[in-house]
Amino acid sequence: MTTIAPYPPLDPDGKGLGRLDGPCSLEQVPALAWNLLAEDVSLPAAVLYETRVRHNLEWMQRFIHAYQVQLAPHGKTTMSPALFKRQLDGGAWGITLATAPQVNAAYRHGVRRILMANQLVGRANMALVADLLRDPDFVFYCIVDSAANAAALGAYFAERGQTLRVLVELGVAGGRTGVRDDAQLDAVLAEIARWPAALALSGIEIYEGVLQDEALIRAFLRRATGTLRRLQDDGRLAAGGSALISGAGSAWYDVVAEEFSGLDIGRPLEIVLRPGCYLTHDVGIYRGAAARINANNEVARHMEPGLLPALQVWAYVQSLPEPGRAIIGLGKRDAAFDAGLPVPALHYRPGQQAPQPANAPQAWKLTAMMDQHAFMQIDDGADIQVGDMIGFDISHPCLTFDKWKQVLLVNDDWRITEVVQTFF
Amino acid sequence: MTTIAPYPPLDPDGKGLGRLDGPCSLEQVPALAWNLLAEDVSLPAAVLYETRVRHNLEWMQRFIHAYQVQLAPHGKTTMSPALFKRQLDGGAWGITLATAPQVNAAYRHGVRRILMANQLVGRANMALVADLLRDPDFVFYCIVDSAANAAALGAYFAERGQTLRVLVELGVAGGRTGVRDDAQLDAVLAEIARWPAALALSGIEIYEGVLQDEALIRAFLRRATGTLRRLQDDGRLAAGGSALISGAGSAWYDVVAEEFSGLDIGRPLEIVLRPGCYLTHDVGIYRGAAARINANNEVARHMEPGLLPALQVWAYVQSLPEPGRAIIGLGKRDAAFDAGLPVPALHYRPGQQAPQPANAPQAWKLTAMMDQHAFMQIDDGADIQVGDMIGFDISHPCLTFDKWKQVLLVNDDWRITEVVQTFF
Repeated sequence: MTTIAPYPPLDPDGKGLGRLDGPCSLEQVPALAWNLLAEDVSLPAAVLYETRVRHNLEWMQRFIHAYQVQLAPHGKTTMSPALFKRQLDGGAWGITLATAPQVNAAYRHGVRRILMANQLVGRANMALVADLLRDPDFVFYCIVDSAANAAALGAYFAERGQTLRVLVELGVAGGRTGVRDDAQLDAVLAEIARWPAALALSGIEIYEGVLQDEALIRAFLRRATGTLRRLQDDGRLAAGGSALISGAGSAWYDVVAEEFSGLDIGRPLEIVLRPGCYLTHDVGIYRGAAARINANNEVARHMEPGLLPALQVWAYVQSLPEPGRAIIGLGKRDAAFDAGLPVPALHYRPGQQAPQPANAPQAWKLTAMMDQHAFMQIDDGADIQVGDMIGFDISHPCLTFDKWKQVLLVNDDWRITEVVQTFF
Repeated sequence: MTTIAPYPPLDPDGKGLGRLDGPCSLEQVPALAWNLLAEDVSLPAAVLYETRVRHNLEWMQRFIHAYQVQLAPHGKTTMSPALFKRQLDGGAWGITLATAPQVNAAYRHGVRRILMANQLVGRANMALVADLLRDPDFVFYCIVDSAANAAALGAYFAERGQTLRVLVELGVAGGRTGVRDDAQLDAVLAEIARWPAALALSGIEIYEGVLQDEALIRAFLRRATGTLRRLQDDGRLAAGGSALISGAGSAWYDVVAEEFSGLDIGRPLEIVLRPGCYLTHDVGIYRGAAARINANNEVARHMEPGLLPALQVWAYVQSLPEPGRAIIGLGKRDAAFDAGLPVPALHYRPGQQAPQPANAPQAWKLTAMMDQHAFMQIDDGADIQVGDMIGFDISHPCLTFDKWKQVLLVNDDWRITEVVQTFF
């Protein structure tokens, strides 16, 4: 398979769409002329603001360009090949993914350079990747942190006469995956070396996001560059082609860029950063991270405005059962709730001219969520009615995207210009 | 539309499936002969145990039958019309749902009697329901707890010459939706009465699950039956047909059955209970609820064995980076994490005869989850390897189902007999 799978039509069984009279392809969406404020769309609905998405894409690409490194955005955030395409068209080197089915979905919809930031474990997962590797134009890396996994991969891909590019992952004590010390590293390297035809050792990968302290992160990054140099000096890296070093989640990419930029190990080298959440940003964990980055990083400081929150979930006021309390038609099935609850940002009463801020002078606030409802604390005598629409900012885009199969791209006139499909 | 929409073929972009060489309809699944233990399936995967699902379906239907009431399982739990069909074929009166898109998806796939346990709010949501009401065989109820919503519904459906059956929801102070007192009730009733052609007042609905105290729940249930009597005595209920009273989530259905069973208001009456989680049960919140039910309820006590946990998520041991810690390829995207983390139940090493218990003599335990990983605490020297498979029991089936578009039905030989699609 080297063709690109077409996107399915809109799913009439899905939520957060407007009315469909019959099958509707993605190309037909603009002609539907849905408008969010005209109540053309069933709420709750997930909304991406077109202008802000474009700003964020350009912002990150300029940042990456300033450091002369490569961007492989973590695609697990959105799992949307249409958004991957925007990232690649904007200059991204490739896409990072977390699992073999994610790799498969991205490949099927056109992505041809993928870094899987996990070990490839299990026969069916290996088979998914092996099928894709039959395409000589497909460039794929995965990580290894155990001799047992290297042995399993070596045996599997040797039997098929295929070569798998692997990166050794370094990790820290008390962290997530990754080899902790030189003894583990040597065991992994020895096993990889047993499969010279099947396993091509291509470099080093880390995920610094398990640490919260900048000094520890810088030390970890230097351990990664030092290890890569040693692999090169010891002739451990596969011959031919570039080596690769990769780090950076969405919170510390500035520090990774500073540490990795300009690294020279005496052979061609790809330096690949993997932030994923910049595309939508948020008003929670990643706004916090951005504040640190904009304060500390020389490049980001001069790129005003910074990243903008581009993803909202809109929902109706469902019930006003008692003073001080509004029940919203928005649940744990509609937005992330693990890193701060959604934040009411916009308030719109159908028929009005434009949405108003929902946070000032009011202090409306979600206090709890159930599967399909949220509890919103409101001021006494608030001007709020059943049927009013509330636009919620979110914290943690990854766990918001995975609650939607179809996300609406909205322009400055609140028109739905595109429906973006996700493949979770 | 009165035809039934066909199920789409397996989604090759999805997770938790086996290898597909091309398009595959649901009917073709058994011929694939996938076996979970043979590693035919990409993990993580969501698994329903066929035998246990059948047991749970029969158990609840027997319970319901003993009280001579009706069952309208809350379909939001699974959002799987194939499972709705099993519930309806087993004797359920109808299906309960939470939102207009859920109603639409259920209708499209064959459900013709639906109780929507929420207010119907917003123009596009009303349009979804109005379209379905053009089918004279479609029986639909929704709830109302505000005069403003009754007015909006009245105007909308009057303009279309359609009649909407509504139930007034009663609620409790500090609870979720539902009218709190007689003044609110009277306002809602007065507004409903303004739209005699468009709104057919059909009865009373409550959700007792916002309370945790049995005495308070019984008082609430008696308020519901008393209010229904008053509506009947005052001639408030729409003429013709049965009246309806409904309560019961998955935790207190025994008490609701006890209180509502045999209720006679002097006209035909449907008594409808709405538990949803019994189909899969769990080892967390609903096991806790079942312990109380089996101890207290005369009928349940004699129905041994009780409900069985029928839903697991299987995942690989992804990394063993340091003593005492296994990283599992299972994340917040794969299982509920809001009411207790998944519990390791079965441990299987590919090639072995059968899975072993993962909880005894070991005391393996998840301590944290990230988007795509879980941290499992293991005993020192545990017999565990990268590539081992772990079957996890779960707590809170609703927030596990919504992470899967395709769930595997597995028989006693670990063969995949069916793929069940969800429509979230």
